[in-house]
Amino acid sequence: MPESQTNLAWDVLLDLAVQGTGPQHEQLARALRSAIRDEVLPVGTALPPSRKLAADLSCSRWLVTQAYAQLVAEGYLAAQTGSATRVAWSPDRDGRRPTASRPPTPAARYDLTPGLPDLRAFPRRRWAEALRDTLATMPHTEFGVPARGGHPRLRAVLAEYLRRCRGALASADDITICSGVTEGMTQVSRALKAAGITTIAAEDPSWGRTRHAAASAGLAVQPIPVDEDGLRVDQLSGFRAVIVTPAHQFPTGTVLAPARRAALVEWARDVDGLILEDDYDAEFRYDRRPVGTLQGMDRAHTALFGSVSKTLSPALGIGWYLLPPVWTDLVRAGSAPPVADQLALASYIESGGYDRQLRAVRLRYRARRDALVAALAEHLPDARISGVAAGLHLLLHLDGVTENLVRRAADAGLRLTDLAVYEVSPSEGSTLVIGYGNLADNAVVPAVTLLAALLRR
Amino acid sequence: MPESQTNLAWDVLLDLAVQGTGPQHEQLARALRSAIRDEVLPVGTALPPSRKLAADLSCSRWLVTQAYAQLVAEGYLAAQTGSATRVAWSPDRDGRRPTASRPPTPAARYDLTPGLPDLRAFPRRRWAEALRDTLATMPHTEFGVPARGGHPRLRAVLAEYLRRCRGALASADDITICSGVTEGMTQVSRALKAAGITTIAAEDPSWGRTRHAAASAGLAVQPIPVDEDGLRVDQLSGFRAVIVTPAHQFPTGTVLAPARRAALVEWARDVDGLILEDDYDAEFRYDRRPVGTLQGMDRAHTALFGSVSKTLSPALGIGWYLLPPVWTDLVRAGSAPPVADQLALASYIESGGYDRQLRAVRLRYRARRDALVAALAEHLPDARISGVAAGLHLLLHLDGVTENLVRRAADAGLRLTDLAVYEVSPSEGSTLVIGYGNLADNAVVPAVTLLAALLRR
Repeated sequence: MPESQTNLAWDVLLDLAVQGTGPQHEQLARALRSAIRDEVLPVGTALPPSRKLAADLSCSRWLVTQAYAQLVAEGYLAAQTGSATRVAWSPDRDGRRPTASRPPTPAARYDLTPGLPDLRAFPRRRWAEALRDTLATMPHTEFGVPARGGHPRLRAVLAEYLRRCRGALASADDITICSGVTEGMTQVSRALKAAGITTIAAEDPSWGRTRHAAASAGLAVQPIPVDEDGLRVDQLSGFRAVIVTPAHQFPTGTVLAPARRAALVEWARDVDGLILEDDYDAEFRYDRRPVGTLQGMDRAHTALFGSVSKTLSPALGIGWYLLPPVWTDLVRAGSAPPVADQLALASYIESGGYDRQLRAVRLRYRARRDALVAALAEHLPDARISGVAAGLHLLLHLDGVTENLVRRAADAGLRLTDLAVYEVSPSEGSTLVIGYGNLADNAVVPAVTLLAALLRR
Repeated sequence: MPESQTNLAWDVLLDLAVQGTGPQHEQLARALRSAIRDEVLPVGTALPPSRKLAADLSCSRWLVTQAYAQLVAEGYLAAQTGSATRVAWSPDRDGRRPTASRPPTPAARYDLTPGLPDLRAFPRRRWAEALRDTLATMPHTEFGVPARGGHPRLRAVLAEYLRRCRGALASADDITICSGVTEGMTQVSRALKAAGITTIAAEDPSWGRTRHAAASAGLAVQPIPVDEDGLRVDQLSGFRAVIVTPAHQFPTGTVLAPARRAALVEWARDVDGLILEDDYDAEFRYDRRPVGTLQGMDRAHTALFGSVSKTLSPALGIGWYLLPPVWTDLVRAGSAPPVADQLALASYIESGGYDRQLRAVRLRYRARRDALVAALAEHLPDARISGVAAGLHLLLHLDGVTENLVRRAADAGLRLTDLAVYEVSPSEGSTLVIGYGNLADNAVVPAVTLLAALLRR
């Protein structure tokens, strides 16, 4: 290696300009590090004596020795008494090339994708106030290591809420706080796997996310058909676990019929199995009170999953599950959401703010659904709507040719979702799952008009 | 089943008083549900005709039919035209008994447990402001489904921070946001397992949490000793993955020596392995600049883990890891922290607030460490201190008999931690790991005095 390299113009060699923050010796250390990484200074290169480099750079010698010592400590340089300090490291040639970020999907003019609440209705001010009050008043000890299964206060408040509003048999001890239903399903599925259960039944059609959660835990997921009474419970023989949405089946919009509910509970008792009840949008029923949870009928065989993703926002990342005690010890809880967020939600529920918000958006969704149904009846009189008056979506059964409809609609600025997206065994016919949760009120008629125009083509 | 039960005093039978919120028909439904669950109304019991019950309860008949219909929908009751509505469900006799919550550990007067930052120093106001500004200004679309690996803005800001302060080779694409180092280790360990790596090496002594994260993912964890130069890299043959704390070994407080750093990188290249670098308290070095990350020397073979748990608070639940690209696709990210929290942290870092906070607490910890070292020298002159001037803890090597010291100290209100807690292979001698991060400044001398008194006994 050329000793002569120490005679180069170091102020040119070292790109000190681009790294212009922090103390000077750090800037120098960074510049040297970069030069080593970029092989401007290959391994073995002798660095100039600190006195000489200090003169070249018009800085103090102390500054240079500090920078050298730093890089020696990091292994980039090696110092030996009586000899020059040398570069001791070279970049790995197999190192990565930077990958380009994927371009974002262009925003649609009208987005009828199901699964989102009204994002404009998120109670920003109330939530910020709840967080501010929490952060101002929480004891400093609450900033320590949080409880893994969730803060006891939120668990107690949720237990009361689930008893009161969802007919659940809940105590704080049974509740685990997590980041959402998918995360909860993943945790419980891992416990099922560890307990020797290898297969789980799931409604077909259903959310891909919950099926994938079970699959990612190593369970084989078997689809069970759904008809107008909900899950075909008679097809559960041989299983010991099932994922089900009894209050409002996603995406068909049916409610599990009373006889089916009874049969499902009976099945779970007979096989000593576990019903994974996803109570995902049960708060939104417009024609009557929502049915209570299955968990309230058999808490020994039901795990109840819920979240604020459909009631407030999926960006809050707060969900929960309620387990039968025999499973509590088998499920390894992940980390709960930030403590301040948990306490803010507890306050928001306790103050009545959450109930008020639910009442307000329930009215809003109900009116929007009515407007959507009316617009569909006017502009698409031959299409049939199904699903009870609930939730944030409905099914639209189309007649006749709908080839490439989803793609053609996307080109026209209308985002649609085919029922087939949620089906393991694709059905006959052309059916759309129309989400109206996050559709602006003034977009309902234009979106339906556009859809009708596309179908006339 | 006795038809005569319909002649009981229903207003007495149904405990309407305790359930006094919500519309009346809901109250009635709840009361009936409770009575069925408690087997006050056993399966088969005929309910009174709605007209009669309405008269008994002095309410409208509509109210009763609503409540009945609700419970029929839920499967508690069965209605047949031309016959009485009957109870159709009974509680599972194998159902749970409520478990008692564990009593909380009594608070110690002086808590010298390592692993906590100064909880009193958490910047409540700044954090609340960052959250408030974020919630007030974020576009409503940000309340939608969050990106699984973390918000692009926080990833970009952290990449810049890690390049600037930790000498990492970071781009936003490489970074995954998670809830903390333990969660990140769990996710990466699962990917190692899936890639066919069955064993992982870990420093001994070390945090139990990171070892457990690897073990919970199904990896066999093999302890590798640590000496005064850090991890014994020469004992890594046969492994392809290792968890290491090079900047400040926990709990011994050593810094991985330059030759060891070089040997570790060489090992990783030779075996095409993965170094899991836990950069857990690297921001706190008091005598000099902290060494840069190993990741900066070989980004193709290093996964870098960090969090705000030691710099701000573990209750925030925000951490990250930086993966070599070859691993990025293999690791299945969990859900990231709430979007508003991520954006608030990004703003806090970008505004310079995070750097200012770090400078402030660094001074505070440095002064506290100095006070602690001085007090130990005065009151425990025979005890030896080890560990570089860094982090939030030091090792205290005691001389002579220390039998039952931890228990005796706890009885006296002093919480101590024996080094053995972190050791897989227990060493000789009596050594304490003294955490001073969360020790109030005015508690330093009394805590040391109390410890000295206990040791004199």
